Amino acid sequence: MAQTQSALLVVSAHAGDFVWRAGGAIAAATMRGERAVIVCLSYGERGESASQWLQKKPLDEIKQIRRAEAEAAAAALGAEVEFLDLGDYPLLESPEAVERLVEVYRRVQPTVVLTHPLSDPYNGDHPAAARMALQARVLAQAIGVAVDGEFPTPDEIIGAPPVFFFEPHQPEQSDFKPNVLLDISSAFPLKRAAMECLPAQKHMWDYYTSLAIRRGVQVKRNAGPNLGLPHETMGEAYMRYYPQVTSVLE
Amino acid sequence: MAQTQSALLVVSAHAGDFVWRAGGAIAAATMRGERAVIVCLSYGERGESASQWLQKKPLDEIKQIRRAEAEAAAAALGAEVEFLDLGDYPLLESPEAVERLVEVYRRVQPTVVLTHPLSDPYNGDHPAAARMALQARVLAQAIGVAVDGEFPTPDEIIGAPPVFFFEPHQPEQSDFKPNVLLDISSAFPLKRAAMECLPAQKHMWDYYTSLAIRRGVQVKRNAGPNLGLPHETMGEAYMRYYPQVTSVLE
Amino acid sequence: MAQTQSALLVVSAHAGDFVWRAGGAIAAATMRGERAVIVCLSYGERGESASQWLQKKPLDEIKQIRRAEAEAAAAALGAEVEFLDLGDYPLLESPEAVERLVEVYRRVQPTVVLTHPLSDPYNGDHPAAARMALQARVLAQAIGVAVDGEFPTPDEIIGAPPVFFFEPHQPEQSDFKPNVLLDISSAFPLKRAAMECLPAQKHMWDYYTSLAIRRGVQVKRNAGPNLGLPHETMGEAYMRYYPQVTSVLE
Amino acid sequence: MAQTQSALLVVSAHAGDFVWRAGGAIAAATMRGERAVIVCLSYGERGESASQWLQKKPLDEIKQIRRAEAEAAAAALGAEVEFLDLGDYPLLESPEAVERLVEVYRRVQPTVVLTHPLSDPYNGDHPAAARMALQARVLAQAIGVAVDGEFPTPDEIIGAPPVFFFEPHQPEQSDFKPNVLLDISSAFPLKRAAMECLPAQKHMWDYYTSLAIRRGVQVKRNAGPNLGLPHETMGEAYMRYYPQVTSVLE
Amino acid sequence: MAQTQSALLVVSAHAGDFVWRAGGAIAAATMRGERAVIVCLSYGERGESASQWLQKKPLDEIKQIRRAEAEAAAAALGAEVEFLDLGDYPLLESPEAVERLVEVYRRVQPTVVLTHPLSDPYNGDHPAAARMALQARVLAQAIGVAVDGEFPTPDEIIGAPPVFFFEPHQPEQSDFKPNVLLDISSAFPLKRAAMECLPAQKHMWDYYTSLAIRRGVQVKRNAGPNLGLPHETMGEAYMRYYPQVTSVLE
Amino acid sequence: MAQTQSALLVVSAHAGDFVWRAGGAIAAATMRGERAVIVCLSYGERGESASQWLQKKPLDEIKQIRRAEAEAAAAALGAEVEFLDLGDYPLLESPEAVERLVEVYRRVQPTVVLTHPLSDPYNGDHPAAARMALQARVLAQAIGVAVDGEFPTPDEIIGAPPVFFFEPHQPEQSDFKPNVLLDISSAFPLKRAAMECLPAQKHMWDYYTSLAIRRGVQVKRNAGPNLGLPHETMGEAYMRYYPQVTSVLE
Repeated sequence: MAQTQSALLVVSAHAGDFVWRAGGAIAAATMRGERAVIVCLSYGERGESASQWLQKKPLDEIKQIRRAEAEAAAAALGAEVEFLDLGDYPLLESPEAVERLVEVYRRVQPTVVLTHPLSDPYNGDHPAAARMALQARVLAQAIGVAVDGEFPTPDEIIGAPPVFFFEPHQPEQSDFKPNVLLDISSAFPLKRAAMECLPAQKHMWDYYTSLAIRRGVQVKRNAGPNLGLPHETMGEAYMRYYPQVTSVLE
Repeated sequence: MAQTQSALLVVSAHAGDFVWRAGGAIAAATMRGERAVIVCLSYGERGESASQWLQKKPLDEIKQIRRAEAEAAAAALGAEVEFLDLGDYPLLESPEAVERLVEVYRRVQPTVVLTHPLSDPYNGDHPAAARMALQARVLAQAIGVAVDGEFPTPDEIIGAPPVFFFEPHQPEQSDFKPNVLLDISSAFPLKRAAMECLPAQKHMWDYYTSLAIRRGVQVKRNAGPNLGLPHETMGEAYMRYYPQVTSVLE
Repeated sequence: MAQTQSALLVVSAHAGDFVWRAGGAIAAATMRGERAVIVCLSYGERGESASQWLQKKPLDEIKQIRRAEAEAAAAALGAEVEFLDLGDYPLLESPEAVERLVEVYRRVQPTVVLTHPLSDPYNGDHPAAARMALQARVLAQAIGVAVDGEFPTPDEIIGAPPVFFFEPHQPEQSDFKPNVLLDISSAFPLKRAAMECLPAQKHMWDYYTSLAIRRGVQVKRNAGPNLGLPHETMGEAYMRYYPQVTSVLE
Repeated sequence: MAQTQSALLVVSAHAGDFVWRAGGAIAAATMRGERAVIVCLSYGERGESASQWLQKKPLDEIKQIRRAEAEAAAAALGAEVEFLDLGDYPLLESPEAVERLVEVYRRVQPTVVLTHPLSDPYNGDHPAAARMALQARVLAQAIGVAVDGEFPTPDEIIGAPPVFFFEPHQPEQSDFKPNVLLDISSAFPLKRAAMECLPAQKHMWDYYTSLAIRRGVQVKRNAGPNLGLPHETMGEAYMRYYPQVTSVLE
Repeated sequence: MAQTQSALLVVSAHAGDFVWRAGGAIAAATMRGERAVIVCLSYGERGESASQWLQKKPLDEIKQIRRAEAEAAAAALGAEVEFLDLGDYPLLESPEAVERLVEVYRRVQPTVVLTHPLSDPYNGDHPAAARMALQARVLAQAIGVAVDGEFPTPDEIIGAPPVFFFEPHQPEQSDFKPNVLLDISSAFPLKRAAMECLPAQKHMWDYYTSLAIRRGVQVKRNAGPNLGLPHETMGEAYMRYYPQVTSVLE
Repeated sequence: MAQTQSALLVVSAHAGDFVWRAGGAIAAATMRGERAVIVCLSYGERGESASQWLQKKPLDEIKQIRRAEAEAAAAALGAEVEFLDLGDYPLLESPEAVERLVEVYRRVQPTVVLTHPLSDPYNGDHPAAARMALQARVLAQAIGVAVDGEFPTPDEIIGAPPVFFFEPHQPEQSDFKPNVLLDISSAFPLKRAAMECLPAQKHMWDYYTSLAIRRGVQVKRNAGPNLGLPHETMGEAYMRYYPQVTSVLE
């Protein structure tokens, strides 16, 4: 654990997920000067690219389109992005895929991790991504776990970064009960810009802007008396997986 | 909401509860220069004073003993303490009792509230205290709710202070799943001093010291890589009732 | 049980609740020619009328304003409305209040009942209303339970109408997991008209229109292949409390 | 989605499961003139054929016996039946098995799906079947997911048929909380006839008749006032997995 | 705690409940020579005596009929029975009613307590009875809690008898997940005899015999290899509320 | 099922787990003259041997150290121990590993089974071990399931031994709600001796002694009036997975 600066790691099942669900948190981090690294386990080429399939585009071209969009969106958020190209629908869990994620964890040394929640009745790839992200985080902590046959030095293993699940498309059905409401008011313009990098899903731009307003109302409702929030608060909802460690209750 | 400084409000069913369960959080607040106000709804005179009853002391004397102990413990923690003398075993819920708590909320203007969790199969007074603390918090927010016939000014109503449940005696049986682990290492000496103000429960001193070590181990296990915790970390466990509102995920 | 036609009974803690939360279901029922009866247990005069209190209006005037608004909204929905004036903040549960609701159940002979869900950490009046609505429903079924000293005839007791909980303001925090998504597309204009009868809460008009769009998206996502939904589907979410009884799975 | 008529798809881990658990729903569908297709993932040859093993019959003969019984029972219910012969005890999940189910979904175009619940501490094959049935349903919706290397046309993908879990042998231990009670009174004679096609489990005939009576009592208890149920109501219990979509609350 | 022999205390909301739900456990205790005391909080005169009301019998006569039936059933089980006559539909909770139960606990000194589960959407009297039974058990342990103004001696307070919830009419809907399956094979004839003391509910005799067979099947399925159960095992299901304390895992 | 004596089977993910979590139950069994067999699925060589890795010992040597420690600890408890050497971090589930466990079950014919709970956010190997232990238990019951190609005789299959989950390191976070509290007072000296066979984890000796005191306090708090517990009660906490089968409620 040689970590010296804040770094956000986002593990996303498909190429677009990180934009809709965590774009505000990512932009807020980069606006604070922190590093943000997004790992897309797949391009969402089979399950989330219906319009391209209807145009009978070949698989490789679809992947390229999705990759380019995700790169543009990540750039709009000020973040780095990597692609593991593990395939989707289904995203298969494997020791090899987890090993790749262990390598990412050790290289990035994240101080915060974002991923999908563990339940989603509408899309099995999302919980599969979350299970791998969580498993890799534990393995990356162990000095006895090698990557590509190489054992880590004590500096290369990671600590215990907190994990936050971002919001699924149908939160109640996915047992998503937010315990953290993030104020993304100042980061929202970047999130909107990132959304606009995904032209095939234009109908989602307003949908997720409306959701940000809705979560922003909840930010205000749940805020303590001192917070002094802006009039037009925008929000994102998260579920913290491990207990919060703190030296001040607030 | 005219609130200008941090203030901690602790709503405790019986006179001793706040010491064992939240002494660290209280001391940590007062050590930071914040105000801490403890409200004991009863003295615990019937249900938690068995040794005095075995000595056949009269009820009023038992209440006085418990009150004096609680005052000493609060002083050791640097906190103020008030007693509503509502009776225990059972602690009865009533609109009048809730009105008294509304008055406290408006006078103290808490930025953080601590109370018992909502379930405890071993002691019905604890959930009753929690229900009243929560109800009063909501009523104290409403400008249309009077106390003693007097309506509040806009400055006198309260905001939305976060609520934390402190740890019950048998946490798993009370569905207590901590989502906040508080580092009380530097506050622990004051907590120990407060415990020693309760001589009738001397066997509890070591029991709760041991629990603080146990929760301290969990603080370390769940801490992110940057926390730099002391070797002998002491902890207290809490359940946050409302979602955390924040502008930084950490 | 002499019931010969469909009748919807809505039990609402405060005067405005039924509009935001169930206006679509109410309008859909009256548009089908069914009877709809709304019972407001209070006017929401203390807890949900902040702007009137800030104008220092007297209590009776506030109640009158709220009553007039609710009557206008009910009329816009084609529904009847009654007021029990039980007081709010807190709405106190009592055998007398439940007896009044038993009388309503027997008089209306509802085939469907709507009320608040049983949990709401932000407003204790809502669960109190739900508990009374559920208790009265069971008592109204019993031939041995009198109202105002009069025992019912066998024709006057009620059957077992299904109960649906409507959506609270912060659904996930209130453990609201919808198991029924209602298509209110054709009823929505009436719901909007009813919302506009509540001028003091103008900021809510768009908020609840946006929620209807959001629930409408979920209607489409969860619809079976045969539903043929309109392009702009609007929705409301409900939780069915008792099991659905049916002779066809669909 | 070219679907023009109702079709029921039943995914069953072993050859006999569909009879005991969903025979009423299947018969009710075929009595309405609808198509019903049962897919048995295995014959239950290892785990549910103890009497044959005690007679030292060879594996292939056991499979044949179980297949013949299931075909007879399906015929008695008016349903089609298919066998994937994936093996039992354990029924192993694999991408290949799921692909076979995707093919079935696209060929059958179900309007309703029945399968096992997701938890069963007594038999791991049941949740494995459910997980594959659910995963295949999602994959069958995606135009980018091929079967045997062939991509579907827009007509061949499926919509979002509702899924119902049928009753496990020990419902409470399997977290089976029914939210749909199906009246199978008129279909019950066919269910009984199907049960009698399974002579090796003769002791179950009365056991499941008794269960149908028990669920029938609950049908009556939970029925709204207008249902007009027959005196001897027989029932089956189900858990709806996705929210019900409807335009009428009833 | 001067207790020297085993004693079973059953707290029942209405006069008949203990027969259907716990008759086997009661008979098994008395057959072992233990004392069994049943406390009926009400006669069930309003909510569970529809046939008498239809015959237009007066309230007092209905209570007498129900009392006589319960006395006969208790005698058939070898048990004592007491009636607190607190009224039903609703059974109101009050400090006075709880005080009566504290007196019973201290007089009976139970080693085991049976009562209703804490949830029942079909009958609010059942959870009310359970809440009072649980509250009184805790108060009866406290030497500072008086009954009729008299404080207990150390011999008169009670210990910590385990509490078991018996089975409600619709177990899954009442969140009743049995964790104890009781073999009542040898006690069942007495339970049947007690059921036959309730002629107005003749249709229930077979229903609850059938349930005993069903729970008996589960007894056999869950029994360890050494149990040597009789061929025709009859059972009752229970939920243990507090953890089991034991010196042998078995 | 030819079983004639009591036998305890413990399925442990790593070499040390059984000592900290179930040492008291194991010693209590062997002190009663029963057989106890521990199966370590891995040595914990990668995930739980950090100090050895820091000393740059080779993998095989680490395994040998861990094996020797576990053998010494098992001997101190009077138990047999076996090692399946399946690897850890991650412990991979496979049909072959489960088959090995089926062989163990049939050879040992356990009357009681202990393993990890099904959830542990800090260590995925623990739930993996539990899933395999549970699956193997069900397969070992089936006469149609062969091991190494050999089918069992009726004497060789197992019955339905109860399963208890032992305590994880962070119980609340692992949804561990104990429903059995085991008095290990007389067995504790052997447990302490076994702990002292693991010198690399010396800081755990006191930690788990302190936990035994804590669980012992709960043993006393939850004990019925007749138990007559020793002054210094030591305890271990367990979760029973299947319902308890009994002929006496106590």
